[in-house]
Amino acid sequence: METLQAIDVLLVEDNPADAEMTLTTLRDQRLANRIAWVKDGEAAIDYLFCRGIYAERDPQPPRLVLLDLKLPKIDGVEVLRVMKEDLRLRNIPVVMLTSSAEESDLVRTYGLGVNSYVVKPVDFDEFSVEIGKLGFYWLLINRTPSS
Amino acid sequence: METLQAIDVLLVEDNPADAEMTLTTLRDQRLANRIAWVKDGEAAIDYLFCRGIYAERDPQPPRLVLLDLKLPKIDGVEVLRVMKEDLRLRNIPVVMLTSSAEESDLVRTYGLGVNSYVVKPVDFDEFSVEIGKLGFYWLLINRTPSS
Repeated sequence: METLQAIDVLLVEDNPADAEMTLTTLRDQRLANRIAWVKDGEAAIDYLFCRGIYAERDPQPPRLVLLDLKLPKIDGVEVLRVMKEDLRLRNIPVVMLTSSAEESDLVRTYGLGVNSYVVKPVDFDEFSVEIGKLGFYWLLINRTPSS
Repeated sequence: METLQAIDVLLVEDNPADAEMTLTTLRDQRLANRIAWVKDGEAAIDYLFCRGIYAERDPQPPRLVLLDLKLPKIDGVEVLRVMKEDLRLRNIPVVMLTSSAEESDLVRTYGLGVNSYVVKPVDFDEFSVEIGKLGFYWLLINRTPSS
C-alpha cells in the first residue's frame, strides 16, 4: 500500500478531478513521486498521527501538506488547527488549496498559522500551471527542519 | 521618500549586493515595483509599526516580508517573533532569506510560525532565478487577508 511508505506530499482533497490533476502535475514535473491522497479531514489526522489504518506507516512526516478547506467529517480549518498546535507537525508547511476566496477563511487560516493560501483557478490548465509552480516552490526552494 | 508610500514588499537585508539583486529581479520581472529596503531589524520593526522615521508612511502593510536572519541591532528571529505575536502583522507572509542552512535556525523560525524559509544560493545567477520564482509564488499565487 503506497501510503505506508514515507511520502513527500499529503494531499487532502475530496474532489477527485482536482486530486487527479494535482497528482498528475506533481508526478509529471518530477516534483514529487510519493504522494498520499486522503479524502477527508479525519483520514488526514489519522495519517499525520500514524493512527487507524495508518498505524503501520513509515513515521517520517510529509514535506508538504496540501489542504482543502471544505472536507467531509473534519474540515480543513480543524486539521490546520490540530497540526499547528502540535510541536512536531507545526514544522510541516501547510498550503490551503481551496475554491474559497472569502476573507473570513483567509483571516481564520492565517490566524491559525497557515503557511500559504492558494485559491484554485477555475480554468483547468491554469490550475495545473499553478500546481507546478506551487510544487516547485515548496518542494525545491523552501526548506523545512529535517525531522 | 519612496518608503512613505504603500509598498508590496519589505526587504530586510544588510548585505547591499544581495539586496540590489533582489530589488532588481523583483522589478525587472514586474513582480513588485514598490519595495522598501531596510538594513537592520530595528528599522524593520519601526517600519512595520509606523514608528520613528516611518511614522508618516502609508499604514497599508506590505504583502510580503523578506527577512534575513543575521541583522544589525535586532536579529531576524526577533523581528519574526514580534510580527507573529501581533494580531495584524501575523497575516503578512514572512519568508526567511538567509545564508544559514543550520537546523537550529530552521527549527526556531518554524516554531515561531515563519511562512517559509529559503537558503540563498551561493551562485548569483541561481539566486536571481530563485528570487524570481519566490516573488511569483508569493505575489501572484499566494493570497493574504486584505487588511
